[in-house]
Amino acid sequence: MTTENHNTEQADTTASQKAERHKARQQKVKQGVDAKIAAAQEEKGILLVLTGNGKGKSTSGFGSVARAVGHGHKAAVVQFIKGTWACGERNLLEGAGVEFHVMGTGFTWETQDKEKDTQAAMEAWVEAEKLLKEESVNLVLLDELTYMVSYHYIELERVLTALKNRPPMQHVIITGRACHRDIIELADTVSEVQPVKHAFNNGIKAQLGFDY
Amino acid sequence: MTTENHNTEQADTTASQKAERHKARQQKVKQGVDAKIAAAQEEKGILLVLTGNGKGKSTSGFGSVARAVGHGHKAAVVQFIKGTWACGERNLLEGAGVEFHVMGTGFTWETQDKEKDTQAAMEAWVEAEKLLKEESVNLVLLDELTYMVSYHYIELERVLTALKNRPPMQHVIITGRACHRDIIELADTVSEVQPVKHAFNNGIKAQLGFDY
Repeated sequence: MTTENHNTEQADTTASQKAERHKARQQKVKQGVDAKIAAAQEEKGILLVLTGNGKGKSTSGFGSVARAVGHGHKAAVVQFIKGTWACGERNLLEGAGVEFHVMGTGFTWETQDKEKDTQAAMEAWVEAEKLLKEESVNLVLLDELTYMVSYHYIELERVLTALKNRPPMQHVIITGRACHRDIIELADTVSEVQPVKHAFNNGIKAQLGFDY
Repeated sequence: MTTENHNTEQADTTASQKAERHKARQQKVKQGVDAKIAAAQEEKGILLVLTGNGKGKSTSGFGSVARAVGHGHKAAVVQFIKGTWACGERNLLEGAGVEFHVMGTGFTWETQDKEKDTQAAMEAWVEAEKLLKEESVNLVLLDELTYMVSYHYIELERVLTALKNRPPMQHVIITGRACHRDIIELADTVSEVQPVKHAFNNGIKAQLGFDY
């Protein structure tokens, strides 16, 4: 056997060993995933909370709405903080039959009027409560609701009661920073979106079609 | 002045003082936000990375696509891990004119064949490279790309080169766990989605219209 042949043979063995090891690793991953899937058999309406200071919380909520609608499910959105900007996702989703309720004031730091903001928040919340009783609505997105609770515009207890008494198969998504711990406690799934870095802090402006 | 009148007056003062303090706080918040907005004037294509182990990364990416499409922008999606499940967001977004490329194998832990997976990943990546040269595409979602780099199915350098040389106004979103640090370094905005809790771990199965 020449040195060259020997080396080639060795290289072949190594490659095939690597492929075997890869396969063994992947089988182990697959077994773990399969076992988890087999264990998870309950179906119920999920309360999902997307909180934290990073970018992507509301966008994820709207992505879920798009997914639900894509399956022919009925979805509704209540937006508790309305920017003065246009809203690209609303254009698409409302066109696809999604019911939208938008709180009647702008950002709460724009109006600086607690009484007016509380009234606007309550009007939006009443719409939310109606949706949370409506069995035909598969998914309710309560966008930026957390701030309304933080600012005491809407009572925490009233929110918890409506969430607990909703139809058992109805999914609800709540977005916003600093979600109250009692809502997190009640939730089935909670993701915290943390900012690692943000273009805005490097002088890049919010851009239509991407940021709003 | 009776004691009763005096008390009422005090209560009124306190309420009005509270409203004033609320207004002052909100003005300060508004000033901070306004100053940041004034400072952020650059427009450019953003590279957004959504990483971490929590739920909502891909969904957020699809929400961004819905937003872009809602503004009449052109968006395209390359999905690097394709489940065997239906995909609600695809139904809606493809109908709204979004170009989809889906990698030709299932989950990498389903196939357990490195060579086959590498080939499928490369075929999807070639489509991504085409999109990353196409100025008319405003937004490219590279869904679950991070795993392809982690598994060495696609060379990191090739990914970085394509991202750096893309049209300057093109936005790109990369999703997936454990994003390579060099991609994070290159990114403009990075959010890490952390799992606080997940229904799946409490025996609740993934549900059509919500989880997929």
